[in-house]
Amino acid sequence: MEVSVIRQYAKSAAVRQAIISACSEAFAVSGFHGASMAEIARRAGISHTGLLHHFPRKEDLLTAVLDLQDERSAKYLADHRTAGEASDPATILQGMVSTLVERDRYAGLVELSAVLAGEAAATAHPAHEHFARRYADIRRFLSRLFRQLADEGRLRGTVTPEDLAAATVALTEGLHLQWLYSPERDLNVEDILREMLSAFVPELHPQDGE
Amino acid sequence: MEVSVIRQYAKSAAVRQAIISACSEAFAVSGFHGASMAEIARRAGISHTGLLHHFPRKEDLLTAVLDLQDERSAKYLADHRTAGEASDPATILQGMVSTLVERDRYAGLVELSAVLAGEAAATAHPAHEHFARRYADIRRFLSRLFRQLADEGRLRGTVTPEDLAAATVALTEGLHLQWLYSPERDLNVEDILREMLSAFVPELHPQDGE
Repeated sequence: MEVSVIRQYAKSAAVRQAIISACSEAFAVSGFHGASMAEIARRAGISHTGLLHHFPRKEDLLTAVLDLQDERSAKYLADHRTAGEASDPATILQGMVSTLVERDRYAGLVELSAVLAGEAAATAHPAHEHFARRYADIRRFLSRLFRQLADEGRLRGTVTPEDLAAATVALTEGLHLQWLYSPERDLNVEDILREMLSAFVPELHPQDGE
Repeated sequence: MEVSVIRQYAKSAAVRQAIISACSEAFAVSGFHGASMAEIARRAGISHTGLLHHFPRKEDLLTAVLDLQDERSAKYLADHRTAGEASDPATILQGMVSTLVERDRYAGLVELSAVLAGEAAATAHPAHEHFARRYADIRRFLSRLFRQLADEGRLRGTVTPEDLAAATVALTEGLHLQWLYSPERDLNVEDILREMLSAFVPELHPQDGE
């Protein structure tokens, strides 16, 4: 009996995972508003009724997809942060830029983020608060890094740490957007971001780095 | 008879304009995929049949909205470019940054652009080619400006004119996106962009400028 409950649970979790994965694809292609529950069920290979059993409303799917993205981002950062190095702000920045080169593995996620972040800019969108909070959180995190660099005399120029944080978020989002639109996906997001930031944090410059 | 034809034409043009305006609002709120023809007709205050008479498919509406945006951008640039000053690249950049401060007048357009640019990042979207071309055009235009500044020794740092062009587009799009998400729309897009660019084009710096 217990084994069958566990088996049932595992099966249910696998179905949920398949749905979320299918849903991410559907949202990336058609947006949250454009994707229909029927399309998502079809992509997941289950019936419409089966889908509604797991996720009664499309908003529930959106929450699941965004939660998964946050989870992956957290894991992503944790994977690339080694204990000893994590404390230095320049090393963290360096790590952030380096991870971008792996975005090809996450091309679907980059596309999903761009589509949802654009769509949810409308204040009535159910993911609006999620993205507003995410951008504010990242800006706060980056502001602290740049502030520490400024205090240690390692920040060049007149831009404030807060403005540089907003600019860094803008560069990342805006370069990824252009990358999605570049015919061969040949826009070098990582190099351009590193070059731009190293004008303010010289030690990030490729020639001065490893 | 002739007068009635002209009157009919003017009336038809006015209806088209009302539809496009209603459609811009609907796209900004729900995205291209999310906005329904019924919703657009309701916002325009006409019947569904009346809407289909002017725009048989939603794609036709998208084309009309994007054409209008391009037209406004062109007019916008022309309005802010006075004959004698236009030739100097720094003046053109200065003008571009200054016009951003008026974006409040165009808040709906900024939102519409963000929503559509995000949504159309999916390659199957009917506006994908439009945005791909627009970004490539702006990058080419800016690359020429930065190249001229570099040739005249007025560009600081090691970033290439092409990379700086992509970064400028990224900053504009990414800061506007965060502006749409900032609770009081209090993110200062213009100041941050000017500060960032003046690290590379020192004469753009507020203290050195007018």
